[in-house]
Amino acid sequence: MKNYDVIIIGAGPAGIITGVTAKKQYPGKSVLIIREEEKGLVPCGIPYIFYKLNSVDKDAMGPKPFIDLGGDVVTDPVVDVNIKDKTLKVKSGADFSFDKLVFATGSKPVIASFIPGFELKNVFYIKKSYNYINNLFNELQDKKNIIIVGGGFIGAEVAEQLAMHSDKKVSLVESEDLCFSKAFSGELSEIATEQLKKSNVDVHTSTLVEKVLGENGIVTGVQLKGGNNIKADAVIFAIGYKPNTEIAKKAGLQINKVGAIVVDNYGRSSEKYICAVGDCSQTLGFLTGRCDYIMLASTATAEARVLGYNLFGIKIKNSFSGTIGVFSTEINGVAMAAAGLNEKNAPFANIEFITAKFSDVDRHPGTLEGTSPLTAKLYVSPSDGTILGGEVWGGKSSGEMINTVGLAIQKGVTVYELMSLQVGTHPLLTNAPTKPVIIKAAEVAISKIRTLNK
Amino acid sequence: MKNYDVIIIGAGPAGIITGVTAKKQYPGKSVLIIREEEKGLVPCGIPYIFYKLNSVDKDAMGPKPFIDLGGDVVTDPVVDVNIKDKTLKVKSGADFSFDKLVFATGSKPVIASFIPGFELKNVFYIKKSYNYINNLFNELQDKKNIIIVGGGFIGAEVAEQLAMHSDKKVSLVESEDLCFSKAFSGELSEIATEQLKKSNVDVHTSTLVEKVLGENGIVTGVQLKGGNNIKADAVIFAIGYKPNTEIAKKAGLQINKVGAIVVDNYGRSSEKYICAVGDCSQTLGFLTGRCDYIMLASTATAEARVLGYNLFGIKIKNSFSGTIGVFSTEINGVAMAAAGLNEKNAPFANIEFITAKFSDVDRHPGTLEGTSPLTAKLYVSPSDGTILGGEVWGGKSSGEMINTVGLAIQKGVTVYELMSLQVGTHPLLTNAPTKPVIIKAAEVAISKIRTLNK
Repeated sequence: MKNYDVIIIGAGPAGIITGVTAKKQYPGKSVLIIREEEKGLVPCGIPYIFYKLNSVDKDAMGPKPFIDLGGDVVTDPVVDVNIKDKTLKVKSGADFSFDKLVFATGSKPVIASFIPGFELKNVFYIKKSYNYINNLFNELQDKKNIIIVGGGFIGAEVAEQLAMHSDKKVSLVESEDLCFSKAFSGELSEIATEQLKKSNVDVHTSTLVEKVLGENGIVTGVQLKGGNNIKADAVIFAIGYKPNTEIAKKAGLQINKVGAIVVDNYGRSSEKYICAVGDCSQTLGFLTGRCDYIMLASTATAEARVLGYNLFGIKIKNSFSGTIGVFSTEINGVAMAAAGLNEKNAPFANIEFITAKFSDVDRHPGTLEGTSPLTAKLYVSPSDGTILGGEVWGGKSSGEMINTVGLAIQKGVTVYELMSLQVGTHPLLTNAPTKPVIIKAAEVAISKIRTLNK
Repeated sequence: MKNYDVIIIGAGPAGIITGVTAKKQYPGKSVLIIREEEKGLVPCGIPYIFYKLNSVDKDAMGPKPFIDLGGDVVTDPVVDVNIKDKTLKVKSGADFSFDKLVFATGSKPVIASFIPGFELKNVFYIKKSYNYINNLFNELQDKKNIIIVGGGFIGAEVAEQLAMHSDKKVSLVESEDLCFSKAFSGELSEIATEQLKKSNVDVHTSTLVEKVLGENGIVTGVQLKGGNNIKADAVIFAIGYKPNTEIAKKAGLQINKVGAIVVDNYGRSSEKYICAVGDCSQTLGFLTGRCDYIMLASTATAEARVLGYNLFGIKIKNSFSGTIGVFSTEINGVAMAAAGLNEKNAPFANIEFITAKFSDVDRHPGTLEGTSPLTAKLYVSPSDGTILGGEVWGGKSSGEMINTVGLAIQKGVTVYELMSLQVGTHPLLTNAPTKPVIIKAAEVAISKIRTLNK
C-alpha cells in the first residue's frame, strides 16, 4: 500500500491550489491528488463553452502546476475512506494510506427528482465534469428549443450564451420574481434580469415548473404551474448545488445541516488528520458566523491557500474569518458585481443597514468613446459607518472594483475612512477623480447616517 | 465689499470639490469660488484633446455641481490677499472679504527659461488652462514635426496622442534613461517607454535639449547635447509643474522648500482662517512624512473632500496621513499603474523592501477573446510583510486593481493577510481564482521573506 504525507481528493480549484500551496511550503512532503476524470474544467468558464469559447477543451484546466512541483496524480474515483486506519480505497481496488487527508470533493448539481419527468432523455444539469459537459455540448448542437430551469448565475449565464446562437430559442424559468436574487439586491437583480431579456432569452420569472413533458421517453417541453406549456428539445436544470460529501459522511466526518463537512478556520475537520476545503467544506457568514450556502471558486481557492500553508501547523493566520461572498458576472455586456451584505441577505440575519448609491461613467471625460455607465452601492452600518456590503455595476472594471469593496469589508473600513481614500484615476481607465463612485457612495451614506442621528 | 463665509481661489478639481463638499456639509454658509477663466478643463483629459477627443470642449469641466448647491462663482483673477484684514482683491479692482479662505490655485508648468531659445514662437507648455490649450490645439493642426521635451505622464501621453495623426512626426526627448521614471519602477518604465516607441513616437532617452533653434523668431527645431538636431514646427515642454503659490507667498503664508503652502493634515495653513488644498498645498510622503512632489487630481480631490467636511471644525478624521501617489496611464493600449513605494523612490528615503511579481492574463480561461496579459508587482517590508507599494500593468482593469493595492497600503495590510483575501472572479472580467495576480505576488513575497530569514 503506497503511503503519502498528504492525499487530496478532488482536482478542482480547491484541490489543485491546496496541492500547489502544500508542495511549495513543504517540498519534502509527498502529496497525491486523486481525481475522478482525466480532464478538468475551469468551473466558472463552463457557460462560455456554449458560445464564446465554442469548445470544451478551451475551458480545460489541469493539475500541471502541481505536477511541476513534484505532486502525484491518480485518476480513479475514491470509494471509501477509513479514518481510523488512515487509508482509502479507489474504484479500481487499490489502497492508499495517508498522514493527512484533504477533502476537496466540491459540489454537485441538485437533481430535479421532485419534478415528474425529470428522468426523461435530454434533461441535463451543469455538472462540473469534463466528460458530462463534453457530452452536453455535443447534444445541444442540434437542439433548437432549450429551456433552462433556474436563474442563478450558472443558469442565467448558460442561457445568455446559448441564446447567442441565432438558430436556438432559449427560455429560462425562475421561481423567484427576479433572476440572480440569491446573490444580488432587488435593484441589481432587476437590472440583471432586464439584461438577460435583452440577450434574447425568453425569461419567465415567478414561475414554477410543474412537470417535464415527454414522448417516447424523450423531452418535449415543460408544463408550468398554472397550466402553460413551453416546447423544448432539451431541458437544463440549474437549480443549485450541494456539497459532494457522501464519502466523507460514510467515513464518519461531522456534516452540517447544509450537507457540508464541519471545519474550523483552517479547514480542519472534527477528525485529526482530516481536512476539507472549498464547496464540500463548511461556509460561515462573515458577519453572523452562521452556516451559509456560498459556493465560489474564488472562496474555495482562498481557503485552499490557507489550508496549503497550514497543513502541518498554523504558520499563517487566517486574517478574515467567515465568508463574504464576492460575486460577479456579465450579461449582455453589462458587468455586475456584489460583495457581502445586501437587502436580500441582510433581513435573514436581522442586520441593520442603510444603503447609499452613486452613479457616473467609467471614463473621464464621459465624452470619450467606449464609455459605460458605472454605479456603486454600499450597504453600511448606521451605527459606526462600517461597510458591510457593496455592489458595483456597469463597465467591465466593476469586476475589479468589487474587490476594493471586498477588501474594505474584510478590513472593517468605514465610510468616514473612505472620505480620505487616495485612489488612482485615468481618463481611459477609470471614472473621474472628482467623483470616484465608491467614495461618492460613502459620502451619501455619511449624509444618511447624519440625518438618522438628528 | 461683499463678504463670504468661505472663498475658494481656483476652480480646478481641488477647488470645485472643496466647494461642493463645503456647500453640502454647511448649506447655510455662503461660498464663493474665484477663477481665472470662464471655462475649465478636466486636467488628466488634456492629452486626449489632441486625438481621441479631437476637441477641447469635450474635455471641459465646470463648477455646475457647486452652483447647483447654491455656490457663487466669479471669473476674475485674484491679485492680492490681505490675511490680517481677511480681504482679497481681484484684477478688475473689486474687493471681497472672507471668514475662511482656501487656496486651490493648483500648479503651473515649469518654464524652460534655462534653455536658450525658449522664448521662440511655437514653443508651448501643457498649461491647465482652457484658453491656452484651445490655442495650442488650433496651432498644432497644421504642424507636421512636433517635439515633446519631457517623458513624464503628461509629455508621454501628449506625444502618444499626437503621434496617432498619420500626418505628424512626433519626437520625445527625455533626460533620464527611461520615460515615466519618476512614478514607475525601472521595470515598468521600460515597458512604458517600449510602448511609447511602438505608438510611433520617436523617443530619445538619456538625451538633453541644449538649445531651441529658430529662424525669424519661429521654432525650427532643437539642438541636443552632443550636437544632433531635430527639426520641428512646434516644441512642447513638459518638464514638470510647480505649485502656483505666488499670491499665497506675497500674502505671507509659509511656503515649503518645493514651493507649496505648508498645511496640516486638514489643509490648515500657518495662518488661522487660511487653508490650502491640491497641487498648491504641501504633500508629505506616506511613509516618511517628508515633503514630496506628487501632484495628482485624485490626491487633490481626496484632500478637498477632507477639507470641505472639516472647514469649520474637524468632523471627519483624516484616516490616512501622507500621500501615497496612485498613478495610472495607458500607452499603446497597455494600461500601467503604480501606488506608493518602488525601486525608484525608495532609495531616496532609505527604505528597505523586497519585490515580488506574478504574471497571468486578465480573463479566464485565457483562451477567451480579448484577453490581455496582467502582471502585479508588490513592494513589501521584509520585516513585517506590510505592503508598501505596488504596480499593476497589462489589461485595462489594472487601473482599478491598483486601487485595491492602494487601499491595502493605506490600511497597512500585510502579504500574510492577502493569503486569505477573498476576491470575486469572473471569466469575462478578471483573472482566474486559482491565481489572482495580487495574491500570488504576495505569496512570492512570503517565500522571499522566509528565505531572507533563514
